[in-house]
Amino acid sequence: MHIDLNADLGETTAGNPVADDAAMLELVSSANVATGFHAGDPHSIAATLRDAAAHGVTIGAHVAYRDPVGFGRRFMDYTPAELADETLYQIGALDALARVHGLAVRYVKPHGALYNTIVHHEAHAKAVIDGITAFSPELAVMLLPGGVAVDIAERAGLRVIREAFADRGYNPDGTLVSRREPGAVLRDPEDVAKRVLQVAATGSVTAIDGTEVKVQAESVCVHGDSPGSVEMTRRVARTLHDKGIRIEAVL
Amino acid sequence: MHIDLNADLGETTAGNPVADDAAMLELVSSANVATGFHAGDPHSIAATLRDAAAHGVTIGAHVAYRDPVGFGRRFMDYTPAELADETLYQIGALDALARVHGLAVRYVKPHGALYNTIVHHEAHAKAVIDGITAFSPELAVMLLPGGVAVDIAERAGLRVIREAFADRGYNPDGTLVSRREPGAVLRDPEDVAKRVLQVAATGSVTAIDGTEVKVQAESVCVHGDSPGSVEMTRRVARTLHDKGIRIEAVL
Amino acid sequence: MHIDLNADLGETTAGNPVADDAAMLELVSSANVATGFHAGDPHSIAATLRDAAAHGVTIGAHVAYRDPVGFGRRFMDYTPAELADETLYQIGALDALARVHGLAVRYVKPHGALYNTIVHHEAHAKAVIDGITAFSPELAVMLLPGGVAVDIAERAGLRVIREAFADRGYNPDGTLVSRREPGAVLRDPEDVAKRVLQVAATGSVTAIDGTEVKVQAESVCVHGDSPGSVEMTRRVARTLHDKGIRIEAVL
Amino acid sequence: MHIDLNADLGETTAGNPVADDAAMLELVSSANVATGFHAGDPHSIAATLRDAAAHGVTIGAHVAYRDPVGFGRRFMDYTPAELADETLYQIGALDALARVHGLAVRYVKPHGALYNTIVHHEAHAKAVIDGITAFSPELAVMLLPGGVAVDIAERAGLRVIREAFADRGYNPDGTLVSRREPGAVLRDPEDVAKRVLQVAATGSVTAIDGTEVKVQAESVCVHGDSPGSVEMTRRVARTLHDKGIRIEAVL
Repeated sequence: MHIDLNADLGETTAGNPVADDAAMLELVSSANVATGFHAGDPHSIAATLRDAAAHGVTIGAHVAYRDPVGFGRRFMDYTPAELADETLYQIGALDALARVHGLAVRYVKPHGALYNTIVHHEAHAKAVIDGITAFSPELAVMLLPGGVAVDIAERAGLRVIREAFADRGYNPDGTLVSRREPGAVLRDPEDVAKRVLQVAATGSVTAIDGTEVKVQAESVCVHGDSPGSVEMTRRVARTLHDKGIRIEAVL
Repeated sequence: MHIDLNADLGETTAGNPVADDAAMLELVSSANVATGFHAGDPHSIAATLRDAAAHGVTIGAHVAYRDPVGFGRRFMDYTPAELADETLYQIGALDALARVHGLAVRYVKPHGALYNTIVHHEAHAKAVIDGITAFSPELAVMLLPGGVAVDIAERAGLRVIREAFADRGYNPDGTLVSRREPGAVLRDPEDVAKRVLQVAATGSVTAIDGTEVKVQAESVCVHGDSPGSVEMTRRVARTLHDKGIRIEAVL
Repeated sequence: MHIDLNADLGETTAGNPVADDAAMLELVSSANVATGFHAGDPHSIAATLRDAAAHGVTIGAHVAYRDPVGFGRRFMDYTPAELADETLYQIGALDALARVHGLAVRYVKPHGALYNTIVHHEAHAKAVIDGITAFSPELAVMLLPGGVAVDIAERAGLRVIREAFADRGYNPDGTLVSRREPGAVLRDPEDVAKRVLQVAATGSVTAIDGTEVKVQAESVCVHGDSPGSVEMTRRVARTLHDKGIRIEAVL
Repeated sequence: MHIDLNADLGETTAGNPVADDAAMLELVSSANVATGFHAGDPHSIAATLRDAAAHGVTIGAHVAYRDPVGFGRRFMDYTPAELADETLYQIGALDALARVHGLAVRYVKPHGALYNTIVHHEAHAKAVIDGITAFSPELAVMLLPGGVAVDIAERAGLRVIREAFADRGYNPDGTLVSRREPGAVLRDPEDVAKRVLQVAATGSVTAIDGTEVKVQAESVCVHGDSPGSVEMTRRVARTLHDKGIRIEAVL
């Protein structure tokens, strides 16, 4: 048995690291690397890529709306043609940086507001998929299960990597508990480790009402951007190891 | 006896705080607040200003070259007219945000590469002073003692606040030990506390060779951007308090 | 009789002027000056302000979403608190540049996507009005008649300057003909001159179906950003002059 | 006989075109396409690339310091490692956009301050060459003859395309007349056409003192960013055609 652990990395802003990328890259199997649109600059991104290569971590392009001040967390009303070209630009830029280290971009994971928008916004979902396909139809795309982007990506022939969240509460219908509600975030490292184990072993998560919900997740997203996050990820990795579950990239 | 403690605050980048502004504002008397050119966005800056007002902290505009990706640490070859107007723009923007909280910008402290450049670059020094004077000849300017900017500012009739550094090594001639040399940074909280005490009590610092050097400093810069910096600043504040030295803004 | 002519100026991008500001400032009575968020940099803005002062033109802050690449034409989903602070920042920055030339910002006109959004988006409308009021309740705000922003501004006690468009087609209900429909833009200089005259003399415009529609407009927006726009504005000014109608700022 | 004509294109800023790219692409054989750092956004760049493909024009990456407000005309004091990675990022981004249209980046031409800096600044010259080589040692680099960048590029094994300027005055030693001196720019279309013809036919230019100077130029740069520039380039093209000289890309 195996599971992919992915984390958002390369997000240094203005010289200030958001996560301990070097530590996280010892633990995860896939890194969603910022492209400079919500965070990251070429030189700090290059350092993350070098470390990813050293640890054999698979690389995805963490594409975003162009909103560095807002960290890509605000919806921007691009035309679809603009968004497709901005997606393509970001993938190309990151891929060039990656190739120096013997890596290549293998998948794309939209970031922040873009990630959430394309769950329901068809035009933006299609634009992102168009941008990805324009770079290479061999790329995969990492998405929240259940949104319109998944359908559009699969109709376009792209490989979709569905992901679950290690530290987010789930509703009984499989959607995430809103951050405005209690139970939105799991804070106990043991709960988080159990969650990842459950996804890896049974393909399901326990919702906030205690029911077990099937999630179709090949990858689990862990966070690297809070003080205890490296420690929490180490706990997850140890738990998986103890149960004989390999941490392994999808691609 | 009294001394001013100043710190660089308001430097949130892309939603990620660089310092614990709220904690630092309980300790310092003057805050050099970012203006959005090297760091900070209006909304996060406003939060810092609100806390500064709550703690009676004096506000300075931490003006910078427009280089958010490089955190204002790279020299940019502006024309003097461009630089004067960019300086003025930054002061005006910050002052508007400050007035909501009953504050006003009282001084300007150049940041990063701009701070270092105007120690020797006459045209940029004059441009910064021109921008400050254009906003108001009542503003003061906080500078490293001994550079050309000090002379130009005083000739222009501006009040100059000279500053010393709590955690930087000094050469016997009163210049700072280069960051490439050993002894550039003091790391022991006790050394840092002693340094500030010495500046406040005697107006001098002990250089790396043990000689005592006169510094003309009305203010001492403490850092808020590293993990232990709040604790270190608390130690400084406690030491000053124990010796009966008040922490008090120059303006 | 008199009418205000306003134009969007100060929109130099990357050193490339969008309009012939110097020529336009000989003709209009109010200038909506860019603040650097959709266009303009402090130094080119300063040149426009100097010319505005020389011609006695009233200055408004042309505030925008922070989207320089998209020229402020894309909606951005700010929180209201963010938008209020960004509005305040822009007004303060422009006002500081203006004061050097003996001017002050007298009104605010939202730009592009922000202008259109606050016709119907209550939270963003309120945020813009909050930002304006925070700077000074003495400022006016220039708006499209009929939107929610007008109501919110008036409830907040702000002076509202309603504007008509010299070169846009009107529907019989007083709304603008969509740019996707025929008749959206008047291209004949004589039609444009007649339109402005009609607004000044009768307070109404002729809609695309020939009916006369009351518009409550104290100001008429002319464009400065296309090849023939200076010539067209000269024609408008001449026509007004010939009919004895003064071109005069509202404030 | 043949000569390459190159022009700076794709420089739309904030939705405002700097040149008539479509018209210029009918005339030139090589296009230095902006990458978004001094000008251009992915969608407007894509339009230029589509037209370049339609006219069989060879594409170069017009890499720049990251200074969109200053149009890349200000030196920025990057570390070499930063500059190499920023160069690589820009090439990768443009190449991805180009491949959609069946093109690929074939050469790199530094823009503005970067172009001028690497004539004499060894560290930045080496960084740019490192960035280019990291993308592909098959790329060429277009440079001013005689600077240190030429030597560094050739030592690195890169193909160097030396260029002359259609509308710039030359000193007897082959350097360009400073823009602060009289004779810096040729304004008469006939002079410009003659200059290009002379470079193509004899490999030399006539300096401002009338002496003939050898230039080692395989390409001649024509400008597309002023009102008469399309007409001037048409004149150049016609003159070359009349003399039986083909306009042909180097690569």
